[in-house]
Amino acid sequence: MRLVLDAMGGDHAPEAPVRGALLFAREHPEHEVVLVGAPARLGACLAREGGAPGNVHPYPATEVVEMEEDAFAAIRRKKDSSLRVGFELVRRGEAQALVSAGHSGAVMAGALLLLGRLPGVERPAIATLLPTLKGPGHCLLLDSGANVECRPVHLAQWAVLGGAYMRALLGIERPRVAVLSNGEEPSKGTALTREASALLRRSDLRFTGYVEGRSLFSGDVEVVVTDGFTGNVVLKTTEGAAAGVTGLLRSAIERGGLPLKLGALLLRPIFAGLKTRLDYAEVGGAPLLGIEGVGIVAHGRSSPRAIQQALVAALRNAEAGVRAELTRCIAQAASWLPVRQRGGTRGWKGSSREPGGLRR
Amino acid sequence: MRLVLDAMGGDHAPEAPVRGALLFAREHPEHEVVLVGAPARLGACLAREGGAPGNVHPYPATEVVEMEEDAFAAIRRKKDSSLRVGFELVRRGEAQALVSAGHSGAVMAGALLLLGRLPGVERPAIATLLPTLKGPGHCLLLDSGANVECRPVHLAQWAVLGGAYMRALLGIERPRVAVLSNGEEPSKGTALTREASALLRRSDLRFTGYVEGRSLFSGDVEVVVTDGFTGNVVLKTTEGAAAGVTGLLRSAIERGGLPLKLGALLLRPIFAGLKTRLDYAEVGGAPLLGIEGVGIVAHGRSSPRAIQQALVAALRNAEAGVRAELTRCIAQAASWLPVRQRGGTRGWKGSSREPGGLRR
Repeated sequence: MRLVLDAMGGDHAPEAPVRGALLFAREHPEHEVVLVGAPARLGACLAREGGAPGNVHPYPATEVVEMEEDAFAAIRRKKDSSLRVGFELVRRGEAQALVSAGHSGAVMAGALLLLGRLPGVERPAIATLLPTLKGPGHCLLLDSGANVECRPVHLAQWAVLGGAYMRALLGIERPRVAVLSNGEEPSKGTALTREASALLRRSDLRFTGYVEGRSLFSGDVEVVVTDGFTGNVVLKTTEGAAAGVTGLLRSAIERGGLPLKLGALLLRPIFAGLKTRLDYAEVGGAPLLGIEGVGIVAHGRSSPRAIQQALVAALRNAEAGVRAELTRCIAQAASWLPVRQRGGTRGWKGSSREPGGLRR
Repeated sequence: MRLVLDAMGGDHAPEAPVRGALLFAREHPEHEVVLVGAPARLGACLAREGGAPGNVHPYPATEVVEMEEDAFAAIRRKKDSSLRVGFELVRRGEAQALVSAGHSGAVMAGALLLLGRLPGVERPAIATLLPTLKGPGHCLLLDSGANVECRPVHLAQWAVLGGAYMRALLGIERPRVAVLSNGEEPSKGTALTREASALLRRSDLRFTGYVEGRSLFSGDVEVVVTDGFTGNVVLKTTEGAAAGVTGLLRSAIERGGLPLKLGALLLRPIFAGLKTRLDYAEVGGAPLLGIEGVGIVAHGRSSPRAIQQALVAALRNAEAGVRAELTRCIAQAASWLPVRQRGGTRGWKGSSREPGGLRR
């Protein structure tokens, strides 16, 4: 498989992407990584790391999509940006997936404009796999940031996509699906959550109704759908809470006396396990579900290890079964979920106006 | 001071409220608690605890507002509910504050209909004090669940109320105030967050712009405003994440061998400190900011300890300085924040239609 990595995306680019690509490439000699970015900077990075192995290919792109840019405008205007050049490679079939730790709205814009959507999908979503903290499971949260304004039909479609994804990727036969809300009673929620629930009650999914935020970690459900604003806030809150708890422990131990330091030494294997379970770097990246092709959004602060894991995620997402299961389930859902296909992209993160669609 | 406790509110009522009231009453012999609820059940609970001390007064109410009821309808119809009877005591000046672990929407409805709003306040909010996890501070999150649908002016008013509260309660002279969003760039957010930010940029508050969820724990800001849907989801997510992390640690230690158990023993003081810092029971309850009088929303799953702490919170909120600072700041904000006073309560949690206002 050949994977494209946007080497200019992320807070620590191009160093972290380059080093992450090398970590991945050494572990997976049977696959290839195309590093897209400014030739001089990539060359300098690679030289510092002792050069590129045979399965890592630098590929030139002179522009970069900046974080504060309008996503759709940037993809349209910056024809030689690392992101657009990367997506062109996937579109032409010269690579099977793209990974970027850059502007997530622009990754979505690039995927939409250059790859398009799966048949029947109205809006793609960013799907983040969270570790459940009771037991060994995972919970898929979508949308975690692409669609700030959305309609009930979008949440219902994400429930379908999320269920199909958990089945294809993790082999969960009948994933439980829920709508995130401010209480479990059906009277709670907003117009959006109530109407999405009404749609899902008519579905053939294993829909369990509303869940509160704590169910993301409890193992009660495998798929949770919400609007991209709430999803993104929830994700950052989780990160902050987990980092805060481990930080509190660490500083208390550092300030403490010898018995505490001995205790910490004895518990080191447990702390290491906890770190692995909580670390976003281990999850790697979140796929855009519903696009034609594979796009992985990595964390903006991705370390080399996080980039490596995002490339692993890209591999798994590019396997044939995932797309087949997503399209099968979306087609099957047409019986209870009438979707009007619209060309517009209004409301996607980073875009404040209706784009006309890219002329190819 | 005399405090009313809704003895029928919460998952563990009336046992937990009764025991919480006794814990509080023994520690604060100079204050009184009025326990409102079903006489026979209160009597039985008190008898099991060895009777009521002189500063705990049972007070009869035969009805209970149930969790699935419409908040405003229930308060209006159930004239002898523990919640309504309790608020009537506060309204008549026979008590200075009310605490309830019951239907939080109904606590808001009761406060609005029976006590009313502070001059100039359009919508009260539930304000939750979160422990920051870097350093010893706190961050106030509002609204944490009362107002599911809201307008920019509400968020701006809550910023004023929240700042005033942190100054009055914790002595923070110029609290930093922010709007919760899905990214720090001004282009992020929804129409609600963007318009609220535009209002706040014109204010005399120390407004820092957008923050992401992780800033709730970082100590970067003291007040964070958001709509009640997002606030509630964030709060439950935080609870779930914190409980999950401590649960992971506990189960790993239980499954482990002798060195791990010894390590855990040595670290016990740190774990105890962490538990205290994360436990919602220690925070006690969240005040309704913007009502005329003091109403404290305690957690639905409140333990006796949580009820005790909620009564302590009620005491602190009932002190004269808090109301004075809130009204002063709201009046002062009129120069940059024009508010149209409206009688309606549409969009408050638990209410699906416009109530006419309670005839007194």
